This record gives sequence, structure tokens and C-alpha cells, in this order.
Amino acid sequence: MVHAGVGEVEDNFEDRGVHEGRHSREDTVFMSLALQEARQAALEDEVPIGAVLVLNGKVLARAHNRVEAQKDPTAHAEMLVIREAAAQQLGRWYLRDATLYVTLEPCAMCAGAVLVSRVLHTQLIQTCRSDEA
Amino acid sequence: MVHAGVGEVEDNFEDRGVHEGRHSREDTVFMSLALQEARQAALEDEVPIGAVLVLNGKVLARAHNRVEAQKDPTAHAEMLVIREAAAQQLGRWYLRDATLYVTLEPCAMCAGAVLVSRVLHTQLIQTCRSDEA
Repeated sequence: MVHAGVGEVEDNFEDRGVHEGRHSREDTVFMSLALQEARQAALEDEVPIGAVLVLNGKVLARAHNRVEAQKDPTAHAEMLVIREAAAQQLGRWYLRDATLYVTLEPCAMCAGAVLVSRVLHTQLIQTCRSDEA
Repeated sequence: MVHAGVGEVEDNFEDRGVHEGRHSREDTVFMSLALQEARQAALEDEVPIGAVLVLNGKVLARAHNRVEAQKDPTAHAEMLVIREAAAQQLGRWYLRDATLYVTLEPCAMCAGAVLVSRVLHTQLIQTCRSDEA
């Protein structure tokens, strides 16, 4: 599987998602924020993945991969938004009813974190071309 | 599966492991530290799980579950020792050649963290009676 660049992903997202009515306007906004985070990660020479955590239509946390900067193998975008949303924003460990927007299919660690944090939905942006999926 | 209490686990460990020669003396020391951490977690009304991360015969980090205290769903014992060892002790994200001692089979998130951090070995203390495994 060859990952498309962020710009191409954004094009795919626009072409395949919103224009075909598969995403809500709200989804579009939050996915765009996640893509902004992914772009920022690329600028910082991190693995270009971004994530946004949303509850009741509001952004609780947004982050990008920071493994290199933090010297922390667990500092994936999804982990950072889950931790910030719980510990810093909500002051509780469970994120029931929250939605995670992320620019790549979560790894086993992050998928596990979604489970233990009780995140309700995960929205994934298409990050590979359909003929390569 | 019914989990045994920490004391019972320690008895099992002594009876089945060291006395039968399945663990090294070094393993015994580090597993005992992990059990101490698990006991501390119980005292703090956290899920009683402890972990120790070792590199070249030295403890890099020891921790117990702190989900409730930190209001962080990712604050499992394994995650805490991996993060501390990498970011605080070694100043690098990969823990190649390190060994993780843990008092319960890691969940999906923690097993994923072991993979992404390149931890070499995971030593698990038997935490259920053999007739219930």
C-alpha cells in the first residue's frame, strides 16, 4: 500500500467524501483540522499523521505525531488527543460519546487506546488511493 | 478467569517459577518490583497492575496503573514505564534490548506500545490459577 501525500489525500477526501455526501459538513471541518495537523507533523519531520477529538460539536484536542520531538514511542497523534482531552480538558478518563478524526488507520496501540478510553466513533480519512487499498 | 490476589500471585511465582528454575534470579528481583507496584496500585484504588522496564540489568522505570489519579485512560503501568524510560531516562524513542516485566497480560494498547517501542522481551507474571487459565 502506497500512502498518498497529504495534499492528495485532501483532494481524495473532497472528491470522494463531501461531494458524494458521505460526510457531514461538520465532519469536513474536523477532518480538515486533522489534515492541518498532519501537514504540521510533516513540517517537523515527524510521521505525518494528525488527529482531532470532538465532543458535542466542539474540539477537545488536536495533535500530530510527536514521537521524535518528545522521544516518546507512544506520542502518536491519537494518543496525544486522547490524553489531552481526558486529563486536561474533561478531567475524567473516559471519553464516552467523543469522536476521533484521524488521518491514517490507527495502529494496534492507538486502536487499543480508543477502546480503553470509550471513544464512540472513529472517522478515518482515506489515505491511500483506491487501486492500492 | 478469576484473577488471584497479589499475595497469591507472588506465592505462585515463587512456587512455580524460581523453584522450578524457569526464571533467573534477576527475573525474580524485577518481577518482585513489579508486584510491589501492583500492590501500591491496589492501595491507591487503581487497577492493581505493576510494570518494570529493564535494560542491561538496570531498572529504567517502574510504575503502576494510574488511570484514576491522572484521569488518563492511557496511564496503564506498561505505558508509563515505556514513556518514562524513553523520554526521561534514555532520551530516545526506541527501547531496543529492553525487557518489560508486567503483572498481567498487556491489553491491546499496551501490547501495541511494546511493538512500537521495540521492547525486546516481555516477562509476564502468572496472575491466574492454572485451573482457571
